[in-house]
Amino acid sequence: MKSLGVGLIGTGYMGKCHALAWNAVAPTFGDVVRPRLVHLAEITDELAARKAAEFGFAKASGDWRALVADPEVDIVSITTPNAFHAEMAIAALEAGKHVWCEKPMATALGDAEAMAEAARRSSQVTALGYNYIQNPALNHMKSLVDSGAIGVVNQIRIEMDEDFMADAAAPFGWKSAAGSGHGALDDFGVHPLSLLTVFFGRVARVVTDMAKPYPTRRTEDGTTRPVETADIANILFRLENGVGGTIQLSRSAWGRKGRIALQVFGSDGTILFDQERMNELQIYEARGPVASQGFRTILMGPSHPPYGRFVVAPGHGLGFNDLKVIEARVILRAVAGEPAHLIDFETGLSIERTVDAMARSFASGGWIDVSHS
Amino acid sequence: MKSLGVGLIGTGYMGKCHALAWNAVAPTFGDVVRPRLVHLAEITDELAARKAAEFGFAKASGDWRALVADPEVDIVSITTPNAFHAEMAIAALEAGKHVWCEKPMATALGDAEAMAEAARRSSQVTALGYNYIQNPALNHMKSLVDSGAIGVVNQIRIEMDEDFMADAAAPFGWKSAAGSGHGALDDFGVHPLSLLTVFFGRVARVVTDMAKPYPTRRTEDGTTRPVETADIANILFRLENGVGGTIQLSRSAWGRKGRIALQVFGSDGTILFDQERMNELQIYEARGPVASQGFRTILMGPSHPPYGRFVVAPGHGLGFNDLKVIEARVILRAVAGEPAHLIDFETGLSIERTVDAMARSFASGGWIDVSHS
Amino acid sequence: MKSLGVGLIGTGYMGKCHALAWNAVAPTFGDVVRPRLVHLAEITDELAARKAAEFGFAKASGDWRALVADPEVDIVSITTPNAFHAEMAIAALEAGKHVWCEKPMATALGDAEAMAEAARRSSQVTALGYNYIQNPALNHMKSLVDSGAIGVVNQIRIEMDEDFMADAAAPFGWKSAAGSGHGALDDFGVHPLSLLTVFFGRVARVVTDMAKPYPTRRTEDGTTRPVETADIANILFRLENGVGGTIQLSRSAWGRKGRIALQVFGSDGTILFDQERMNELQIYEARGPVASQGFRTILMGPSHPPYGRFVVAPGHGLGFNDLKVIEARVILRAVAGEPAHLIDFETGLSIERTVDAMARSFASGGWIDVSHS
Amino acid sequence: MKSLGVGLIGTGYMGKCHALAWNAVAPTFGDVVRPRLVHLAEITDELAARKAAEFGFAKASGDWRALVADPEVDIVSITTPNAFHAEMAIAALEAGKHVWCEKPMATALGDAEAMAEAARRSSQVTALGYNYIQNPALNHMKSLVDSGAIGVVNQIRIEMDEDFMADAAAPFGWKSAAGSGHGALDDFGVHPLSLLTVFFGRVARVVTDMAKPYPTRRTEDGTTRPVETADIANILFRLENGVGGTIQLSRSAWGRKGRIALQVFGSDGTILFDQERMNELQIYEARGPVASQGFRTILMGPSHPPYGRFVVAPGHGLGFNDLKVIEARVILRAVAGEPAHLIDFETGLSIERTVDAMARSFASGGWIDVSHS
Repeated sequence: MKSLGVGLIGTGYMGKCHALAWNAVAPTFGDVVRPRLVHLAEITDELAARKAAEFGFAKASGDWRALVADPEVDIVSITTPNAFHAEMAIAALEAGKHVWCEKPMATALGDAEAMAEAARRSSQVTALGYNYIQNPALNHMKSLVDSGAIGVVNQIRIEMDEDFMADAAAPFGWKSAAGSGHGALDDFGVHPLSLLTVFFGRVARVVTDMAKPYPTRRTEDGTTRPVETADIANILFRLENGVGGTIQLSRSAWGRKGRIALQVFGSDGTILFDQERMNELQIYEARGPVASQGFRTILMGPSHPPYGRFVVAPGHGLGFNDLKVIEARVILRAVAGEPAHLIDFETGLSIERTVDAMARSFASGGWIDVSHS
Repeated sequence: MKSLGVGLIGTGYMGKCHALAWNAVAPTFGDVVRPRLVHLAEITDELAARKAAEFGFAKASGDWRALVADPEVDIVSITTPNAFHAEMAIAALEAGKHVWCEKPMATALGDAEAMAEAARRSSQVTALGYNYIQNPALNHMKSLVDSGAIGVVNQIRIEMDEDFMADAAAPFGWKSAAGSGHGALDDFGVHPLSLLTVFFGRVARVVTDMAKPYPTRRTEDGTTRPVETADIANILFRLENGVGGTIQLSRSAWGRKGRIALQVFGSDGTILFDQERMNELQIYEARGPVASQGFRTILMGPSHPPYGRFVVAPGHGLGFNDLKVIEARVILRAVAGEPAHLIDFETGLSIERTVDAMARSFASGGWIDVSHS
Repeated sequence: MKSLGVGLIGTGYMGKCHALAWNAVAPTFGDVVRPRLVHLAEITDELAARKAAEFGFAKASGDWRALVADPEVDIVSITTPNAFHAEMAIAALEAGKHVWCEKPMATALGDAEAMAEAARRSSQVTALGYNYIQNPALNHMKSLVDSGAIGVVNQIRIEMDEDFMADAAAPFGWKSAAGSGHGALDDFGVHPLSLLTVFFGRVARVVTDMAKPYPTRRTEDGTTRPVETADIANILFRLENGVGGTIQLSRSAWGRKGRIALQVFGSDGTILFDQERMNELQIYEARGPVASQGFRTILMGPSHPPYGRFVVAPGHGLGFNDLKVIEARVILRAVAGEPAHLIDFETGLSIERTVDAMARSFASGGWIDVSHS
Repeated sequence: MKSLGVGLIGTGYMGKCHALAWNAVAPTFGDVVRPRLVHLAEITDELAARKAAEFGFAKASGDWRALVADPEVDIVSITTPNAFHAEMAIAALEAGKHVWCEKPMATALGDAEAMAEAARRSSQVTALGYNYIQNPALNHMKSLVDSGAIGVVNQIRIEMDEDFMADAAAPFGWKSAAGSGHGALDDFGVHPLSLLTVFFGRVARVVTDMAKPYPTRRTEDGTTRPVETADIANILFRLENGVGGTIQLSRSAWGRKGRIALQVFGSDGTILFDQERMNELQIYEARGPVASQGFRTILMGPSHPPYGRFVVAPGHGLGFNDLKVIEARVILRAVAGEPAHLIDFETGLSIERTVDAMARSFASGGWIDVSHS
């Protein structure tokens, strides 16, 4: 395997996560050639140079197009604000680069469609940064489900809650303006949908309610302004395979910091997961004496790959950033032509279309079918 | 205060709970005159006599009408199968007795309406056996909410799950037949609605999905029969005060034994409760330094009345049956003309009408307004 | 089975618990003749009469010796302050009554020895009110251990913590005076020892440390007084069968309300229990694929006798007072000559002797052998 | 700040952790100059070269002395088996390098003394790899304690449990041979002691019990061999400041994977921590209305430095390996002459001496004073 040349656009929090992942993937996994950190782009030459030194990249540019044109770059990490994703990703694909783009895909459904179209025209790997799906706990859940541990799945509940918008006294910010989207629905909804889609199947029908806990917020100039997005969204859904369930989203849920709580009910058992305790999985198996049945809390360990690549002892815990390192490994696998557990632009588009149907359901007040093509 | 004469109809599980409550209410509370256990009715003289001896009742009848006619009886506990509630309750009210009737109110909305009408014509106390609302933890939740601990409530989620129908191999039983009602919706839905109604307000609008995890079940004669009720129901709702939320119900949720999980979100905090840990309440208050904020698990104790009437030390735990003793005390208070925290036939009717609207929403496929009159 | 005549001495908290148990045991279990509540004794005629009416007893006396002499009384419940236990229990045994006496047995080792001696001379049933051992969760633990679910037990840890002495500003009370005993060691230590003794075996050797978190306390007259008892005690122990472990006791452990946390380690698994969640038991079994192993939380239900006598559905929860009802049933069984799971005066004496050895170990500063005869 | 030249000896699990930390420290913290990965040593040239490529080091040697002699190396990471620590660390110090050495310090107390002596003679930074002390949760605990949140600490309990020796059927391995030390006492004991020492003070007196759950183990050749080390150790201790408590250690505790459970009791509250949920801290503060008091679970977030350097949102979780990155940052701070929260060779020696006293207490059967000089 030859070393892959990496380009990184953007050095905000997600840019840093990509940089950490590219630095860590070879020592962590020990089975890949260490990627070359070739080129970093930021909005000024100065910032690019400073971050390149910090992150370990050889070249730095104030112009992302120089990076895309760099023949030493094989793969481009795109971690800029969402509005730039489409232009950059399409340019990179057209330049023959693989693309690892942060989610959500784009700020408009049309842009997401253009990205998927560009991916279809290309033979390169595309990947969206849905890192939650890389959690060994969730992959263990998937293998348990596939092995029949809980029988036939018949109901799924997902809650995603944080509290960064919960303070009624916080000033009006861009996330409260209509330009940012619908609110929790797209800000958060894509994460539960990424889990549903890759682990259980595509969504067929939805009905949605949305709510604004604070109808107005104060502005910096001392007046108030009506809030245009909904911090809360509740959805009833049916998957294409008939399985039903609920999605509950809130970015104004005091006390919830990174909750993605999943309840999967089957004909022979139940599985529970909560991202706030991301190293644990709970399973109830309706087997053996009733007196001994109960929810079993499984702590992640080396028997849950690739946990053992990070820590040799069980129960010591992975962190959120480690998921990005796993994602980097998965992408290297995809680039090498192996089957890879990731969300490419095509699947990403399906998620965007589901969010769009949810929004239309709220507007229309009834059930909406999701169009996946 | 003079001693109240008690009549008990029915000696199944709920009959036993009433008997235990009537035996325990005076020693437990120490502030009420011990009720006289006057008369017990069952379907045969023999069974009635045996149970009267066991439960401590003085008289026994194989005919409930004799009990209703007994001048020594002041209050009638009705714990028979639901189909008998209306006839017995109305007869008892017309005989001038107070009535403590188990939930659900009746098997048909018309019967519930007749019961409420009889209550309106009477000056007696009516009470439905919604004992979950008597939990000191929930009453502490209510006082916290009322005191502004979590600010203005803006979202409520309730899940009620058990697993007694979860076994796909279990034979077709009466709960799978249409005659038993809609399924989880009315079998379970009345409990979350009792909590919503007395603590947060009446439901105004709903949209419902329902599901049958097992479309057929085997019968005793070796064939299979289509299941006519839905073990799973999901509801989006809005209260009359505008607060929205979700109700999620399943009686096929493996591993859930008595889960009634409540999440109440407010502008200044969040409260969590789960009936499976009925002696605990969790609260997150968005006050003080962010670094010190978190969900606080409050163990019930003497500072949460009437816990201290049962146990003098905190954290030692009440049981499910103790809730019935509290309910008996509340009813004695109502009979004495004091304000009482209970669900009377009028409020019970409102709950039945909400369930009815939920069922109609599923049939129609859209939002339905609840008619409360 | 003929009905047993009950006498009750004392109507404080424990007296009330006995009264509730005697009222509830027949309706709850349905397989015993309802005991007759014959006679209640208190320190004045007036209090006795009032409590007899409240608790449902037929006769009342201001003199406990009248109760002991009452030929209608078959069993005497002794729930008076500990200093009176020996005199009353011995008198009742000598009058041919069965005795159910609250723990601890006595305030001096000599008294406990006299009680055990009186029991040996009698053919009556003696029982000490160690109700924690009646918890279905602990009895399920015992049956799991006996069935080999965790293999050979090799280590046991017990913590018992409450916080009623934790407030440094609380005034000097009788529990801080030497006359009350050693402190947490005997106030609390008897409970862990009751669990160890009946479930795992007698203690052979101990080494003890004790501590006073607050060396002085203020008195009502505004001065301070040195604290004479230790709110904290830590013990290393070995059982007669060689199994080792720790006992950790504190009555100044802020936040702990009724914690009795048990950790039992074996060659094939581990069992955990905490009285603050008394309806749960956790077990880890080292069986099957490592990737699926974890601690399983078992919620008590009808498959854990006698839970089902209280509630027909699992996961609904027993309360602390229900343990006393189970204890009453066990005592009725013992009176009927059946094998019974209880702590009689002989076993109680063994517990008292272990506490005494613990205290002597702290005084001597080293390991002490417990003398059980 | 100039870039520090790093040398790494050893590439086992801990070597990998050091490599990951040196790669990640600059992007993560953004306030340090990226260290230069200068030189890596392993037992053969070939292995050294392969690992250098994987870990990103420029030079590779099969001889660690070449690395120590390399003038470009400023700091040496020592991650070899414990028996080599002393020789390598002393050589590196004598060559004027800073030293970051994995724990435990050495396999003999004399070696640890020699290392501390070499450190005293040098002006370089020494640090032992006690990474648990770097957890933001524990540092938040420390700041809460220092701020008086729980008043005056009066009792501490620490349990450290894993289950890698719990399988009775596992063959005799080197950890069961006397040459490996005492068993859990030194294998595990150093970790609780690192927490005690840096957060609460040095240990003054101890009494120890130790146990072998499996007295023999089978060998590869089909016979059995007596186990020479104790998988279980229990210690009662007193700190120099008088605070007492317990240390409980087991490497045969089925189901425990990485448990380091800390209970800190104070005059105004209690703090709990468990390494298996390393992103959480629980605190009970005895303030405000009793009815509202409870254990508060604080999820780590940006308000708990340096969490925010890893993830911008709270509740998303650090992993075990992240602690090593924090440790690298602390060492860079020490090298820069700033106050640093680490365990140097002097403090490390104090820990080793405490372990030695614990072992002697078991041999002598009584309390032993720890000699810290």
